[in-house]
Order: sequence, then structure tokens, then C-alpha cells
Amino acid sequence: MIKKILIANRGEIAVRIVRACAEMGIRSVAVYAEADRHALHVKRADEAYNLGDDPLAGYLNPRKLVNLAVETGCDALHPGYGFLSENPELAEICAARGITFIGPSAEVIRRMGDKTEARRSMIAAGVPVTPGTEGNVADLVDALREAERLGYPVMLKATSGGGGRGIRRCNDRAELEYAWPRVISEATKAFGNAEVFLEKCIVNPKHIEAQILADRFGNTVHLFERDCSIQRRNQKLIEIAPSPQLTPEQRAYIGELAVRAAKAVGYENAGTVEFLLAEGEVYFMEMNTRVQVEHTITEEITGIDIVREQIRIASGLPLSVQQDDIQHRGFALQFRINAEDPRNNFLPCFGKITRYYAPGGPGVRTDTAIYTGYTIPPYYDSMCLKLIVWALTWEEAVARGSRALDDMRLQGVKTTATYYQQILANPDFRSGRFNTSFVDEHPELLNYSIKRKPGELALAIAAAIAAHAGL
Amino acid sequence: MIKKILIANRGEIAVRIVRACAEMGIRSVAVYAEADRHALHVKRADEAYNLGDDPLAGYLNPRKLVNLAVETGCDALHPGYGFLSENPELAEICAARGITFIGPSAEVIRRMGDKTEARRSMIAAGVPVTPGTEGNVADLVDALREAERLGYPVMLKATSGGGGRGIRRCNDRAELEYAWPRVISEATKAFGNAEVFLEKCIVNPKHIEAQILADRFGNTVHLFERDCSIQRRNQKLIEIAPSPQLTPEQRAYIGELAVRAAKAVGYENAGTVEFLLAEGEVYFMEMNTRVQVEHTITEEITGIDIVREQIRIASGLPLSVQQDDIQHRGFALQFRINAEDPRNNFLPCFGKITRYYAPGGPGVRTDTAIYTGYTIPPYYDSMCLKLIVWALTWEEAVARGSRALDDMRLQGVKTTATYYQQILANPDFRSGRFNTSFVDEHPELLNYSIKRKPGELALAIAAAIAAHAGL
Repeated sequence: MIKKILIANRGEIAVRIVRACAEMGIRSVAVYAEADRHALHVKRADEAYNLGDDPLAGYLNPRKLVNLAVETGCDALHPGYGFLSENPELAEICAARGITFIGPSAEVIRRMGDKTEARRSMIAAGVPVTPGTEGNVADLVDALREAERLGYPVMLKATSGGGGRGIRRCNDRAELEYAWPRVISEATKAFGNAEVFLEKCIVNPKHIEAQILADRFGNTVHLFERDCSIQRRNQKLIEIAPSPQLTPEQRAYIGELAVRAAKAVGYENAGTVEFLLAEGEVYFMEMNTRVQVEHTITEEITGIDIVREQIRIASGLPLSVQQDDIQHRGFALQFRINAEDPRNNFLPCFGKITRYYAPGGPGVRTDTAIYTGYTIPPYYDSMCLKLIVWALTWEEAVARGSRALDDMRLQGVKTTATYYQQILANPDFRSGRFNTSFVDEHPELLNYSIKRKPGELALAIAAAIAAHAGL
Repeated sequence: MIKKILIANRGEIAVRIVRACAEMGIRSVAVYAEADRHALHVKRADEAYNLGDDPLAGYLNPRKLVNLAVETGCDALHPGYGFLSENPELAEICAARGITFIGPSAEVIRRMGDKTEARRSMIAAGVPVTPGTEGNVADLVDALREAERLGYPVMLKATSGGGGRGIRRCNDRAELEYAWPRVISEATKAFGNAEVFLEKCIVNPKHIEAQILADRFGNTVHLFERDCSIQRRNQKLIEIAPSPQLTPEQRAYIGELAVRAAKAVGYENAGTVEFLLAEGEVYFMEMNTRVQVEHTITEEITGIDIVREQIRIASGLPLSVQQDDIQHRGFALQFRINAEDPRNNFLPCFGKITRYYAPGGPGVRTDTAIYTGYTIPPYYDSMCLKLIVWALTWEEAVARGSRALDDMRLQGVKTTATYYQQILANPDFRSGRFNTSFVDEHPELLNYSIKRKPGELALAIAAAIAAHAGL
């Protein structure tokens, strides 16, 4: 069994991993850039080491991190999400230095990280993919010809892309010509790989993803799906588990596809298979070979601690559950509370949290690294808190989300919390009908006053739900 | 449907009820003594009214509270727990003034509040009770004769007692003679009723109680049991659901007994039937005709929102669940974090909370009315926070409890949190073997240092659990 873990990350996911370690009797080692000296993961871990003054270089240096793991007597490394979590080099260096990497093998990371390679693997495994190019496209002439064949609109995608970057929709020939140099440039800068490919654009799809767990004994299970259709510019804002817009048959089919996809590539550890749904069809989009930001809601509905399972799997233990034991109960929503001003084009708002009061009571969970007096540094992403709610029914879960958003106090920076209240107040959202175009199609939800009396909107939302449900 | 509720209480339970109201689209009205001007329930309710300078008189004045409900346009009143929650007069005045009392009828409250009357009802319904006197005992001579018949040790109990007061164990004739005037005096002062009775003392029992819900359509269900054996002087400290020390057959039997007890008295709303277990036998102890402090852990394992159900039942709606729908999953523990100094005979420590950081992450819930900067007034009980944890297995739940106690920061007053860590570190507790004598039998758990590095004890506890479970 693993005894000591270096956590190669920061923020709420580092705190999440520290907590899992504490509950398993495993020592945790935090790392931090100077800008993160007062971060919560540093305070909560059993040990913490400074990576230097550069706010990013240390978190992005696989060799340095693995050296530190060796020097501090760790036997494993958890990469979290973001940063180096999908960098096969980190997994390789860990393996070479005798440090257990808590994730899949470098080979699998590489295979699923290459989007055209991943598509090929899925096609071979009988997992449906969107119509697209056979592999990468060589040049613009090739791209224009392929786009004609597929039919516009098409998506121009970076082969190494992910997390919503290196991707652009092209509605016609002119847009493809315009996008071509820009996506290549973005892909080169962000991923160090200029390769791109084309997919037919699935219009107004739902984003549905399935959580899987796989051990080294050939057990691969799914933990049902998450509905991440509420996005803005490919960034997820509110995630829901299970999806309120799937039939039981669709749910079972997507779970089965995800297991098939994972088995096809010999996957081990926790992973997520992302799909698009449109007009009754399901298309494989990509696989994320790491724990996801929204793993929390799957934990809420299944009761399974995903980070704990990751550590168990990496320790060489079998899964603690079989597929038939895994049940989902109720509905969970996660709100990504970002330090951004929605009414000012979601401009990030870094600064000092002058007051943070965590919402509480039944069905409310928070995962965060902020605290009263903490200053959000400007170098990292703007998500400062994950607010998760659970209730037995969809209607109660929505009302609880509204109540919890209202209950929370987060002062000193602007956040997306009130904007999320606006989304909850929308009748289409409340009745569980939405797709990835929801945010764009409802610009009016940005017209709100922050001067309203706390509680009034939450009360109105709950009253509307109660009236609709005939309570 | 109820539209507006007056909450005739304070502290965390008032906040709990405000939250339920907010999620149901119901307006909430708080009341407060001057000493509670800055209390959280006042801030979170939709309206709040001052009851005057006396810290207790207003909360204990049924006529004043019902008048206020009428004047503020409420159609219902929630009594919470403690204060007037089991006062039949409050229910009667509500009924007379057209205010829905969220609880059972005055008649049922009176019947179960009279312990000898409750015993008679249970005997008639075929619910086992401890051997005891037929009714009240007339005088000391009568008591001594009855004690001889039952056999020492016996419990001398106030007929109107409850909450651990008006009760004393007598091991022999001399102790009964000594206790007699004292219990009568305490009963007269605390409950305004000098009547007492005797029960055979069940030695080292487990305290097991079953949560029930009953609507006005004859549906009565149980939500399984809670194990409240970890007590000190009849005050519960840590509560667990379900009990880790029951067989499935015992669980089913106790649930069935609780439903039988509730049906026998025509019970409506939420209630708790308390039992003692010893040597394989189950004995009815008493029924609490209100929501309990520890209702939270039942919510965690069943997913059912008990306060919501209370309000639905009082609104004349049927239960939202049938017995067969009610499943329990995992284990939940509640820690009553009291502002007390365990190493100084649990002396209450009122004062200002200079810092409160709520623990978070998976499976952690807090119900509290404290916040950073809040001053705990000296007039009320010392419980300042309920920390609730849930996990799929008993071992994980204990490890999570330890982690969450460690994660929490509560500064400015001494609390029972570290003492609870000591309890979790005890191998008997961890293996689920304990009864109501646990606290008395382990005085060594009070010998701890508060200077230890945070995290070390939690880590040791989790490591011991992992080693024991063979992880």
C-alpha cells in the first residue's frame, strides 16, 4: 500500500487529495510556488516544499517534481487535474524513478491525448465517433476538401487539444480559411503540436460524460454519467449527475460505451469518456485520463470516493466495488464559483477574500482552497470554489442549489454565483431541457441586479418549483 | 400548502428550518431575544422579530409566540427541539388561533410526555417496556417496596422528565432514600410535576432510537435507527446511523416496533422512539414528539429531508416515500461540538468565536449557527456546531470523522472536538463495540494534549483503520 504521496498540484484539488490521504492514513506532501505560500493545500498537507519564485514553472516541471518525491521519501505522486496531469512524460519519469504515478500509463495518456489516434482506437472498438477526417489534415487545401465532404458546419480541432482550447467552429469555407492559421498557432503555443483535424459539427448537442474506474485485474466499471451541457466557450459552469435528460436505456448504453472505450485501450485508474448527444445519436468526443473537476457529483450520487479509488488502484488493490453494486441515488449539481464578473464579459477578478462563509445544512458540500483573508493570486485559473448540492429529486436538488448559493457569503471579489441563480431561475433549465447552446441562447440571464435582498430570488425559484411540482 | 412559518426557536435548528423553508418556497419568520440580535437565524430568515430583553422568557412564552405568528401573517409554527417543542399548550394555542403546529397533536404530546402513561400505551400495543411500576409511586415507602420487587439497581424517574433530566440510578435502598427528595425537587422545578416512577435499571445498555414519519392518511414509516450510546450523563455526544452493532433482524424488529408504537397513539408528523438494548432484549424507553438534534444522520443515510417531510405532513400532504422506497446507504456520524472544556469537567466556555473554518470535502456536512466573530451567549446550551460525516463503510466513516474534526478550525472557545478524536482513536469504538457506559469506562480518553501538531492524530487513526481493514 502507498504510504506517502507527493501532490503535484495546487488549489482545491490539492486539498481534495490531502483529505483523501488523511482518511487513508497516508502522509501527504504539498508543493507550492512562492505565490502560493499561504495556500490551503500548504497548510493542510503533512509536509510542504517550495518550488521557487516562478508561479508556474515549478508546477510544470516533471523532473523537478519527481526528484522532490524521491527526496522526500514519497512512494507515489498524484497529478490532480490540469498542469501535468495528462503529460505522459511525468508518468514516464515517475516509472523510471520508482514512483507510482496515480493515473494510467504514459502509453495510454499519449494515445488518448492524440485526438486522431483516440478516434482510431474508438472506431476499432466499435464506439461511435462523429464523422470526421481519417487522421490529421495536411494543409488548408486538404481541410477545405474534407470540409466539403463532411458538410458545414465543421469543427477544426488541435490533435493535442483539450479543456476547450485549440478548437473552433467553422460555418462555411470563409470561416475555415480564417480559423486555419489561428487554431494552428494556438495549438502550437498551447500544446507544442501544430497538427489539426476536422470533425463534422454536431449542432446544439448535449455534453454527456461517463466516469469510469479500472483496476489492474481487468475490472472496469462505470459510475454513470454527468451532464455538462451548461458551458460557456467550452468551459463547464454547472455540472449535473445523473443527466436529467436521459432515458434509462440511454444511461445504460452510454455507461456500456464508456467501459468498452476504456477496455479497448487497456485503461487503468479513473478516467472520463466524453460524448456528444444530438437527435438521439451518441458520439465519442474524447477521453480525459485523469480525475475531473466535476468528479464530486458522481461521488454524491454513488457514494464512491473517486480519489480514494484512484489511490487504491495505484496501490495495486482491486476496485472496492463491482458494477452491480454501484447504484445512483438522487441528483447532484456542482456550481463552479469563479472569481469573474459575468456582467463584464466574465473578466477574472483576483484579489483578497474579505469574507467567506461556507454554506451548510443538508445536501451541501464545498470543495475549495479559499478562506477568509486569502488572496487569490492572478497566475492561476479563476475557479475559487466548487459548491455541490445533492437531493433525492431533480426539483429538490435545483431548489437546494439556489438556497445554498444564497446561503454562501463570498466577499472581496466578484463571482459567478448570482449568474448561476439566474440560470436556476430559467424554466427550461428547471425542467431539465438544455444543451451546450444554453448560455449563448440566454444572454438575458446576464441582466441582473446584485442589489436585491438576499434570499428573495432563491425563495422565488423554490416557490416556482413547488408550484410546478404541485406541492 | 403552508406559505409562511414562524420558527419558535434559535440556534442551529432555527437555521435548519429556515433552510428547509427556503428550499420549499416558504417564507420564514425568526424570533429572537435581545441576546440573539446577531444570531445567524435572524440574519438568514426572511423576517425577524425581537422578543424582548429576557434571554429566555420570549422563547418560552407560547401565547406570545402564537400571537406573533398571527400578527405576521404566518399560517404555521415550527417549534424545533427543546424550548416549547414538547409543550402541549403551544400546540393547543396554535390550534385555537388557526396556526398549523408542525408536530403531533397536543393530546399525543401529552400522552407521550407522561412517562407512565406512555408506558401503559406501549404495554397495550405489545411494545416491550422495561420492568417497572404500574404507574407513579405514591411515596417513598411505596417506592422502596416496588424497588425490592423489581430488584436493584433501579431508575427513579420523573414522570414528565426527558432530555436526561429528572432521572437517577439507585443501586440500593440507601441510594433510593437519598435520591427520592432530590429527583422530586428537580422534577418539580424543571417540569412543574412532582410525580415519579420506578423502572428496573438495564445495566450497560445500548441506546438505540428509531426515526418515524407519519402522515394523516395512516401512512407510518420508519427511517431505521440511530445509535446514541456515546453519552455523558445522559447527554448524547456522538450519534451514529445505522447502528454498527445491530443484526439486520434486530434492525427490522426495532423499526417495526417503532411503527407499532407510533400507530398505537395515532401519531402524526416526525417522531423518535427510543429503546434500550441489553443482552439481546429490546425495551421501549420513551418517545420524543419532535425533531431531534441527531435527525441529520438519518437524512444522510436515507436521503430523506426530515424537516421538509415535517412541513409537508403539516400541510396535509401524504408522505413523499413509502416504507419499501426507504433504503439506507453507508454510515453517518454526528459530533456535537460543544463549547465546553472536557478536561475541566466539561465546563461550558462561552465567548467570542475568533475564527471558524468549516470543514469540507466529500461526505462532510455542518449544521451550525456560529460564524467568525459571533459571540456565544451564556444563556443557552453549549452545543455550537453539529459536524456530520458520511461514508459507504463504517471504517471510512470513522476515518472521515477524524479527518473532518481535524480539518475544522474553531478558535476563541474550548470545544469537545479533540475529545471526540480521542474517542475515535479507541479500538473498541472503532470496531463498533460500545454501550452507554463507554464514556465513564474510559476516563483515560480525557488525558490529551492540545499541543500536538494538527493532523497527526487523524493520520494515526486512519492508518490504524487501514491496517485493521487490510488495505
